[in-house]
Amino acid sequence: MEFRVRAATREDCRDISRMIRELAVYEKMPDGMKISHEELERDGFSQNPFFHCLVAEVPPQHRTKEGYTLVGYALYFYTYSTWEGRSLYMEDFYVMPEFRGKGIGKALISNVARIGKEHQCVRLNFSVLSWNTPAINFYLNKGAQDLTTSDGWHCFRFDREALDKLAEEAVKQ
Amino acid sequence: MEFRVRAATREDCRDISRMIRELAVYEKMPDGMKISHEELERDGFSQNPFFHCLVAEVPPQHRTKEGYTLVGYALYFYTYSTWEGRSLYMEDFYVMPEFRGKGIGKALISNVARIGKEHQCVRLNFSVLSWNTPAINFYLNKGAQDLTTSDGWHCFRFDREALDKLAEEAVKQ
Repeated sequence: MEFRVRAATREDCRDISRMIRELAVYEKMPDGMKISHEELERDGFSQNPFFHCLVAEVPPQHRTKEGYTLVGYALYFYTYSTWEGRSLYMEDFYVMPEFRGKGIGKALISNVARIGKEHQCVRLNFSVLSWNTPAINFYLNKGAQDLTTSDGWHCFRFDREALDKLAEEAVKQ
Repeated sequence: MEFRVRAATREDCRDISRMIRELAVYEKMPDGMKISHEELERDGFSQNPFFHCLVAEVPPQHRTKEGYTLVGYALYFYTYSTWEGRSLYMEDFYVMPEFRGKGIGKALISNVARIGKEHQCVRLNFSVLSWNTPAINFYLNKGAQDLTTSDGWHCFRFDREALDKLAEEAVKQ
C-alpha cells in the first residue's frame, strides 16, 4: 500500500490526539489521555518544542471508513545519556490496526532513527508493557534490548501530587 | 552542614564528569562513561542544550581531601507525556558517599521538582536499578511509584549499532 512518512504539522494535532486515544485503548488505559489537541499544538509546535512527531499518511483512496488519512505516528524527543551523549526517547509509536503489516511501522521507526543519527544521537530509548508481546517481538527483532530484563532497570515516576509535594520541600529550605 | 544547590555552569563540567564516573562505579559499571567533559560542555551549555544540571556545593572548609567542593548533582531534561503533557526526566542523581544523610540529596531532587513545576511539568520520571534498595526506599518514601512493578513497564533501548542499522532502513526506502 502506498503511504508516506512526514514530519507532523500543527494541523495534524487533532489526528495525533485521536491516535493517542486509540493507543491508550490498546494499552488498556482508555481514560489515560488528559490533555487536548490544543495542548499538543502549544507544546509541540511553538519555539523550543517539548516533542517532535512523524506521521504516516495514506492517499485519499485508502482512507479509513471514518475518513482518516493519518494512520500512524511516532512521537519522540531529544534526551541525554551521561555515558554516551545525545539520545532520543520515543514516547509513542502507533499504527492503526487495519494498516499493520504493510511496512508503515518500520518506516516510522526507521525514520526516527535516521533523524536521531542526523542529530548525532547514539541511543533510542522507549518503554514497553510486559504483556505486549507483538510489540516486544517487533523491537527485539530489530535489535533492541530489554534493559529491565537484562540489567534490572525499573521505570519510576513522581506523579502530579508527589511532584507538588517534592517541589514544596525546595521552597521551604 | 552548610551547602548550596545551584544551576551548573560550563566550568563545572570537569567536576560533573568526575561524579558521573563515581556514580558509574557505584552502579557496578565503572567503564560505562564514554564521553568527556568537553562533550558535556558542548551538549549542556550551548544554545538548545540537551540537558540541564543542578550541583550541590560545600564551602571550602568542608572540601574533600582531594579538594573537591562540588559533592552532588542532579542532571535532567524536559520530556513529554502524550497523556499529561510537559514532564521531566532525571537522568542522574548523585551525592558523594561521605556527604550523604545531610539533606543534600533532598535539596537537589526537590529543586529539580521546583524547576519542573515552574515550567508547568506534571511528572518527573527516572530509572533505578532493582538491587539499589537504598535509592528505591528514598524515592518510594518521597511518593514515587515503581511503574515496572505496578504496571509492567520495561525499559528498552536501541544502542549505537542497532540504531545505525535501523537508520539505514529508512535511507533504503
